[in-house]
Amino acid sequence: MSITIKDLAKLANVSHTTVSRALNDSPLIHPDTKKRIQDLAREHQYIPNIHARRLVTDRAYQIGLFFTTLRQGTTSSFIHEVLKGVHSVIGGTYNLVIKGLDQEDALMHVNRKHFDGVILTSQSVKDQWFIDELLTREIPVVVLNRKLDDDKTDQKVLANIVSDDRGGAYHAVQACIERGHRKIAMIRGKEGFRSTEERFIGYCEALKHHQISQIDDYVVQGNYTMQSGYNGMKTLLRLKATLLPTAVFCSNDEMAVGAMKAAQEAGIEIPGDISILGFDDTEYAKYLTPALTSVKRPLELIGQRGAEVLMEYLKTEQRGTMFEFIPTELIVRPSLISIGSR
Amino acid sequence: MSITIKDLAKLANVSHTTVSRALNDSPLIHPDTKKRIQDLAREHQYIPNIHARRLVTDRAYQIGLFFTTLRQGTTSSFIHEVLKGVHSVIGGTYNLVIKGLDQEDALMHVNRKHFDGVILTSQSVKDQWFIDELLTREIPVVVLNRKLDDDKTDQKVLANIVSDDRGGAYHAVQACIERGHRKIAMIRGKEGFRSTEERFIGYCEALKHHQISQIDDYVVQGNYTMQSGYNGMKTLLRLKATLLPTAVFCSNDEMAVGAMKAAQEAGIEIPGDISILGFDDTEYAKYLTPALTSVKRPLELIGQRGAEVLMEYLKTEQRGTMFEFIPTELIVRPSLISIGSR
Repeated sequence: MSITIKDLAKLANVSHTTVSRALNDSPLIHPDTKKRIQDLAREHQYIPNIHARRLVTDRAYQIGLFFTTLRQGTTSSFIHEVLKGVHSVIGGTYNLVIKGLDQEDALMHVNRKHFDGVILTSQSVKDQWFIDELLTREIPVVVLNRKLDDDKTDQKVLANIVSDDRGGAYHAVQACIERGHRKIAMIRGKEGFRSTEERFIGYCEALKHHQISQIDDYVVQGNYTMQSGYNGMKTLLRLKATLLPTAVFCSNDEMAVGAMKAAQEAGIEIPGDISILGFDDTEYAKYLTPALTSVKRPLELIGQRGAEVLMEYLKTEQRGTMFEFIPTELIVRPSLISIGSR
Repeated sequence: MSITIKDLAKLANVSHTTVSRALNDSPLIHPDTKKRIQDLAREHQYIPNIHARRLVTDRAYQIGLFFTTLRQGTTSSFIHEVLKGVHSVIGGTYNLVIKGLDQEDALMHVNRKHFDGVILTSQSVKDQWFIDELLTREIPVVVLNRKLDDDKTDQKVLANIVSDDRGGAYHAVQACIERGHRKIAMIRGKEGFRSTEERFIGYCEALKHHQISQIDDYVVQGNYTMQSGYNGMKTLLRLKATLLPTAVFCSNDEMAVGAMKAAQEAGIEIPGDISILGFDDTEYAKYLTPALTSVKRPLELIGQRGAEVLMEYLKTEQRGTMFEFIPTELIVRPSLISIGSR
């Protein structure tokens, strides 16, 4: 084991910072002190260069936090919540590299020497190639947010931590049904995203379970942006009066905001004429008017759990594949009311 | 100059990926091909280890994107906009490390060997120690968002790129005055953030320029969260009826959302009774009801400019201190109306 800055600090009877500055040739400390520490470092064969040290310890002190995309379809709050969770666990001990897999050269500099591990917040099955490549390169990987399809991959990743989106959607739609709604529409998320399908399945299952037949016109494609929620609601409002939905379940809160806007512009009252529900329970939900009923998905917690699993592995080298299912929770607010309670 | 993967690919008449896989000992290629490439690499003394290579090229291929904090006071959209701007420029060529300076051990692993440069999105003058430390460690640094106080530092950083917050606030308040408002309140941002002071100065200057005396009761402290905007508006609504403001300028959009909520709960009509204005022109602004008048601050552009300056420096080693002032723009929407036009 080579000598550390801490050892040098003890030997020189100075602070950690002073040693660090001396080794970085900082002008902020006295030249004599600097020389004394540098001599000590040489004497004890301290390796000050981080890359040289890495050659010895084989540790990059770096974690990747990768997303399917940092742009279209990935909302600000989504990135921020996951980031906060991961950051709270790794602190300053590891550098956190953030990356979108849709960027050019996404794989450049992604290797075992650069990364001690990667936390992939996966939104789409299209990321599978990237997971396979990480595994080939022997980089420990935790996959958040999307349940892996492939049992083989499943056994190779350190953990797969996802929220129960399907159950969340089921409960949202069931809450509408319990309040007398039968004409329940849905604005779907971005095409190709797993969350889009899971939430849609939850919607379908809830209808089926209550013997409500599913109507094609009530299912509109969105892409998780406010504009797409706005457009989706406009499409629904073009249905003839007898067919107008009494409740619209939106696949995220941003689309719900857009849908509310379209309704309000058309003179449709929420929730008097149409109840609206979202998904994610972003910070905005409770400040909207009316406050938005939404499915809470603990993204910060998911990020935190992912980081914990990875840190634990880096400490102990113990791996055991783990699938974690984080429950979602329906938060009922005034945007959802019972039929006839206007 | 040592041999590159590209050279090896040419010599072996295979693709770049194949060479990379061979050197990473991937099982995805034929053992014979692998051996042939590995032999070639040895023969030409290729240095496959990225850290070893860094010892030679002295380049980390890594950029830091640091924020004063990733939590309280830093909104999701703020982080996301800057991130998108920086990311669009650096692509996959550099890894992007994201960090909040308020985390424990924020300075750990921040050195010339780990970072080719740092883009600091500074919100508070309290970051100055960090900038000094980066400069001491001879890491090229670009400071975004906050105008540096210290001329000495100013000359050492690669660039200081900020938006004209003061001018933006001035125009927002002036727009109120032009519409007949005289009782104009302000909910301030987070204490200690430079943007808070700049926007407040803009407010004061606009009032002064139009000979409207500033009333202490009209200035309420917030902290950039929706809850603080909500609380701020509640405080304002406790003023006696003759003193109630007719317009409230909020230091960001999130606080404007909170303020609108408090007004709506109190049965105050927006904009009929009180006009509301925000700052930042987040994506939500135009989807709120009423749509929010806000000052547009091109954060994505600021991030992009910062990254461009840094990349240019890394290419050419040419530095010239640069101060860039990005204009803001008032976007007038229905949350602001003329007095008496109700």
